[in-house]
Amino acid sequence: MSKFFNTKYKTLVPYTPGEQPRERQYVKLNTNESPFPPLKKAVREAKRVSARTNLYSDPEMIKLREAIAKRYGVSENMVIITNGSDEVLNFAFMSYCDDERPALFPNITYGFYPVFANLAGVPFKTFALDENFKIDITPYIETAGTPFIANPNAPTGIALSVEEIEKIITSNPDRVVVVDEAYVDFGAESVVPLTLKYDNLLVTQTFSKSRSMAGARLGFGIANEKIISDLNTVRYSTNPYNVNSMTLAMGKAVIENDDYTKKNCKAIEKNREWTTRELEKLGFMTTPSLANFIFARHPDMSGEKIYKALREKGVLVRHFTAPEICEYNRITVGSAKQMRALVLALSEILEENNEKRY
Amino acid sequence: MSKFFNTKYKTLVPYTPGEQPRERQYVKLNTNESPFPPLKKAVREAKRVSARTNLYSDPEMIKLREAIAKRYGVSENMVIITNGSDEVLNFAFMSYCDDERPALFPNITYGFYPVFANLAGVPFKTFALDENFKIDITPYIETAGTPFIANPNAPTGIALSVEEIEKIITSNPDRVVVVDEAYVDFGAESVVPLTLKYDNLLVTQTFSKSRSMAGARLGFGIANEKIISDLNTVRYSTNPYNVNSMTLAMGKAVIENDDYTKKNCKAIEKNREWTTRELEKLGFMTTPSLANFIFARHPDMSGEKIYKALREKGVLVRHFTAPEICEYNRITVGSAKQMRALVLALSEILEENNEKRY
Repeated sequence: MSKFFNTKYKTLVPYTPGEQPRERQYVKLNTNESPFPPLKKAVREAKRVSARTNLYSDPEMIKLREAIAKRYGVSENMVIITNGSDEVLNFAFMSYCDDERPALFPNITYGFYPVFANLAGVPFKTFALDENFKIDITPYIETAGTPFIANPNAPTGIALSVEEIEKIITSNPDRVVVVDEAYVDFGAESVVPLTLKYDNLLVTQTFSKSRSMAGARLGFGIANEKIISDLNTVRYSTNPYNVNSMTLAMGKAVIENDDYTKKNCKAIEKNREWTTRELEKLGFMTTPSLANFIFARHPDMSGEKIYKALREKGVLVRHFTAPEICEYNRITVGSAKQMRALVLALSEILEENNEKRY
Repeated sequence: MSKFFNTKYKTLVPYTPGEQPRERQYVKLNTNESPFPPLKKAVREAKRVSARTNLYSDPEMIKLREAIAKRYGVSENMVIITNGSDEVLNFAFMSYCDDERPALFPNITYGFYPVFANLAGVPFKTFALDENFKIDITPYIETAGTPFIANPNAPTGIALSVEEIEKIITSNPDRVVVVDEAYVDFGAESVVPLTLKYDNLLVTQTFSKSRSMAGARLGFGIANEKIISDLNTVRYSTNPYNVNSMTLAMGKAVIENDDYTKKNCKAIEKNREWTTRELEKLGFMTTPSLANFIFARHPDMSGEKIYKALREKGVLVRHFTAPEICEYNRITVGSAKQMRALVLALSEILEENNEKRY
């Protein structure tokens, strides 16, 4: 840190993304990426557009906005496109939280929310999950502020129903509710249709998970067009060309060829069910995840020990140190082959651990 | 605007980027893009990487940081990479301005600076250019605050010397000086070497102009590593994966094959000199630009009229409405063919204007 740094950021603790290892080839199950390559047509589009990057991308991103609007049955003025969904989430913390409207979110959720709040200099309140790690909707109904609900929640994978989220939205029409649907495509139900009914709902989604575009950086928000206009004011005041032209072209191809995404999601769901059963056979407890990851702990070994032992064996998963969840690991659901490697490594680790104990 | 929008942003006037026309094919000289396609090897790299965008990009961007560091003779810890140089500029306004340190910049400069200041909620002071549209360095030496110096300045194209900028840097070692070198490759001298000498200098550059990558979105900052650490704290608190993997790979190829960039810059300089001479023959006054644009006015016709008449004829230039410069147009220096089309269109416009007058 330099002596010049703005005092208000001196205590800022940035978000720590899952590591992107360079030193060794891992079975990489730590950042919820898709094991499937991007759509072939999207790759062709990236190639085509890469030859003319001397020209700026369209700051209005009209073609992709139209494609997303068509896919979700909304108007293109209800869509904002961003450099990953982190960007639209950041804009939402800036736009809809202040001293009178703290951000409200679970104590266990996407770890970036408190960072966004601290960066924007707005207060936040967190609420405990229930005893089954599910979000209890009551505090979000009863507390003044702006709820940020990851649905399904991370890192538990547990989803709320559309009816439960609608209760939060309707409980107070004078504040915005943000629903972060980064993981919605793997079995949960989206509340995007409710954006046509309520003017205080912002839904964010990403191309990083189900759509195999994590490295291309693409996310979007859907809401009433006045909300989108607010967010665009912030976008045009930070970086009007926030999404590059290759990614825009890829995204359009992906959204217009949704069958590939749907097929991949089905495969992930199948691998999730298989892996969950195998983990349970090994004695793991898991949460009922509707996301592309499994949240698992074992009664005989600490979360940290399992994380380190897997790493030794070349399997990378995500371990969090917060006391409520430090016994767990978040395991991305990858390809069938990756899942077999994971289960094999875990069975060896548990066997070695057993030998040590007896 | 929605009723929910944060009060502090309600009066925010976003930056207006040059238009990206869709309805008609223009000779596009309005956003200072390069007329030359990106380096062939960069295009191949984008193609290669686009097939594996299912994996996240490296948030540390180490390969490109190393390449930039090598190119500029600094260490990789002195380099931050961003989604265009607008992003690092935004981070700098956030990090180094506050109520006691207003941003300081010319009244005529990159139009985004006041927007960044307003978004960050920090005050700014502007100072008039001298009678020849050159930056007078005195107020930046005498006034408390954080100077933002575009060098060459936009939209005039006039550069300060390294010695002049060094005077601003050394006048007060207790504040940061930001030098925005978006247009430095077309004939001005970079102050990057001074980052090894002074810990209060941040230099920003872009791949959008000389490097033919406007649509790929890539910029960077070079400074003492403590400054870079500050800026990375902000980066990791907004969007750790801020640059996509295709753009990172392209950027590395471009920076490692600098001859192509240098050749293109020479061509632009040659076209700039030719066009300036032709414009002067037509009666235009121009500023001594060292950038890839020409700032020109004509005594017989208003800037707005010329802008509109060029547009009619299919040539797009940039017109600003600020009273000090509304008689001018900023004309991107493109290919020789584009410049011939511009000069032809202008000579026709002036002739038609003459006929109307007499």
